[in-house]
Amino acid sequence: MERIPILKMGRVLLVTIQVDMHDRLALALQDDLTERIVKDGARGVLIDISSLEIVDSFIGRVLGDIAAMSRVLDAVTVVVGMQPAVAITLVELGLSLPGVRTALNVERGMELLRGVMEPEPDPVDDAGSEG
Amino acid sequence: MERIPILKMGRVLLVTIQVDMHDRLALALQDDLTERIVKDGARGVLIDISSLEIVDSFIGRVLGDIAAMSRVLDAVTVVVGMQPAVAITLVELGLSLPGVRTALNVERGMELLRGVMEPEPDPVDDAGSEG
Repeated sequence: MERIPILKMGRVLLVTIQVDMHDRLALALQDDLTERIVKDGARGVLIDISSLEIVDSFIGRVLGDIAAMSRVLDAVTVVVGMQPAVAITLVELGLSLPGVRTALNVERGMELLRGVMEPEPDPVDDAGSEG
Repeated sequence: MERIPILKMGRVLLVTIQVDMHDRLALALQDDLTERIVKDGARGVLIDISSLEIVDSFIGRVLGDIAAMSRVLDAVTVVVGMQPAVAITLVELGLSLPGVRTALNVERGMELLRGVMEPEPDPVDDAGSEG
């Protein structure tokens, strides 16, 4: 169980972080996630951190890196489910998760993604061969 | 991190099992899940086991118990993401997960649930006060 599973739901990939993120696991998640964004043509990434009781600067950086990597692959990242105590600690530590969008829970995160993701482009069909 | 998070998506609760299930964790999951089914009025439970490389008789029983508990609370349980090797081992062990529906992945599980769950009932409005 050395990999965090990535679940595909339509054009969104859902990741639930439940275990302590060490260096190797974070790298594996970044690898898997970027690969899946490309393979599945995902436009959104939802990361649930409701199990995390501590978000330190390492996790903050991993989340920021994932968001940045997703962005260059044209996918939007939303972090959801942050515990109130985590929000307090983050601000006290001076970590504001730059570049990372947040939402209260998975449902709100999905709504946010739906608003941000452009509608599915029409496949290029016979119109392309004209003119 | 002694609790497995339960994510609500519409009328479905999603659980991703990523860690070794010991006795106490399984009981906590059953407690949390039944509570959430009642509180959220959920009609479906999706359990993703794609991280599990081993499903032994204990996990099999936990999954069966969860499905049975959900059923009496009027929710349908679907287990998704089983690894091929796990399916082989389960059959070789003579464990056929009785009473547990399965689907290939979260998307197919959602489709299955959509087909099984009845449509949202109309709230009883003024018609109830007549006759």
